[in-house]
Amino acid sequence: MLIVGELINTSRKSIKTAVDAEDAAYIQQIARGQMEAGADYVDINCGTKVYNEPETMQWLVETVQAAVSAPLCIDTPNPRAMEVGLGLAQNGQPMINSITAEKERFQTILPLVLKHKAKVVALCMDDSGMPGTANDRKDIVRRLVADLTANGVPEDDIYLDPLVKPVSTGDGAGLDVLETISFIRDEFPGVHTICGLSNISFGLPKRQVLNRLFMVQTMTVGMDAYILDPLDKIMMGFVYASQALLGKDPFCGRYLAAYRQGLYA
Amino acid sequence: MLIVGELINTSRKSIKTAVDAEDAAYIQQIARGQMEAGADYVDINCGTKVYNEPETMQWLVETVQAAVSAPLCIDTPNPRAMEVGLGLAQNGQPMINSITAEKERFQTILPLVLKHKAKVVALCMDDSGMPGTANDRKDIVRRLVADLTANGVPEDDIYLDPLVKPVSTGDGAGLDVLETISFIRDEFPGVHTICGLSNISFGLPKRQVLNRLFMVQTMTVGMDAYILDPLDKIMMGFVYASQALLGKDPFCGRYLAAYRQGLYA
Repeated sequence: MLIVGELINTSRKSIKTAVDAEDAAYIQQIARGQMEAGADYVDINCGTKVYNEPETMQWLVETVQAAVSAPLCIDTPNPRAMEVGLGLAQNGQPMINSITAEKERFQTILPLVLKHKAKVVALCMDDSGMPGTANDRKDIVRRLVADLTANGVPEDDIYLDPLVKPVSTGDGAGLDVLETISFIRDEFPGVHTICGLSNISFGLPKRQVLNRLFMVQTMTVGMDAYILDPLDKIMMGFVYASQALLGKDPFCGRYLAAYRQGLYA
Repeated sequence: MLIVGELINTSRKSIKTAVDAEDAAYIQQIARGQMEAGADYVDINCGTKVYNEPETMQWLVETVQAAVSAPLCIDTPNPRAMEVGLGLAQNGQPMINSITAEKERFQTILPLVLKHKAKVVALCMDDSGMPGTANDRKDIVRRLVADLTANGVPEDDIYLDPLVKPVSTGDGAGLDVLETISFIRDEFPGVHTICGLSNISFGLPKRQVLNRLFMVQTMTVGMDAYILDPLDKIMMGFVYASQALLGKDPFCGRYLAAYRQGLYA
């Protein structure tokens, strides 16, 4: 299991405020908190800073790396900001979020994946836009895996994101994702799957309940990485409980540790 | 989805006390409460009353049927008590809990299934005892479905129970069940699957968390019936949220109703 802590994102008000004020201590506290709560990677997203995204990326990467030794997930569709972030990332193997099957984006991001030997989130979308059905996603998965591996990216560095759409806009939105994960697990067992969770619940009340249970459902069919808020104790408690139930926690040791840490209080 | 309310069971102290005192009002309140909370069937189990189980069964069935119009699940390994319960059950189609692939039990219970045109819970065990692996369960599933349908039991009346063992006694206990459910879903799509949830968490702290998440996991791979405590609001809230995420709740209507009922408070 790989957890990417999603909190350092300038679309969140508290992060935007801290970035605008160059409040390094606040950013560092969030970074440390996510690691202590069980994150493996710290996501850095300053995509809302359209006028100075590369400069903001630089400040954020330097600020976070001064506080934690965790590797970073550089999260931007902007190739310049991506290059700046990756150039500065020095904690272990960086992660790129994200490449897609869109022709231009693929060609722009691929060299960065190879240059930095990065893990890469590959979104199931291409030049025809957001995928509709599970079958649309499977076609894109086949192309992404073929094109990435043909260019030398190891399967173990690929994290396919099926793209989660709200179940409020289509009853089959969750099923499409579950079917895509099962397909990837069976057809490409050496490749990983990852997603963010909050899209699934858009437009519905009690979104956290739906987000957490969608994590449980997707993990049941084989998903092994998440971009989430590790400070959500119930979510992290559910991660460890799910792993125990799926036989991925020898003697339920991590579950028992989570219990002692108060995650189920 | 079919929910069997499990609370009327003399192994529970409050039920034993009420039965011993012939406190019909308490039993009826529990029966009504389960139906109002979303149960489809009311389970009746007085297996601890070894000296007068048939008489206790008679009193419980009559008492419950005086209060609710829901069908009953007659839950006993004692053929005499089973016969008494079924003979009195008059609310819709009764359910038998349970038959097994044990030779003698199968031959004793089968005529009752046919006579009462009952739904039947079929446990994945035979004369060699509790099943070990998922493959053991698959063998028993094939035999149970073949023998029940050959004798005229419709597939739609069969509820296979994979038999849940504690994950604390073997890391693969949950996986074996999930694999068995997937197998049944693929090989016998006309047959239902059911289980109780509490065994999975035996020996571990915060059992309710594990029971609820195991419900979510099993439903994800196709389980469509549960024997559970419908008064556990969080559990029932998870049932409705899971169904919405699995595309089984048009326009999330039942989920929204559950929200308005305060199940996610």
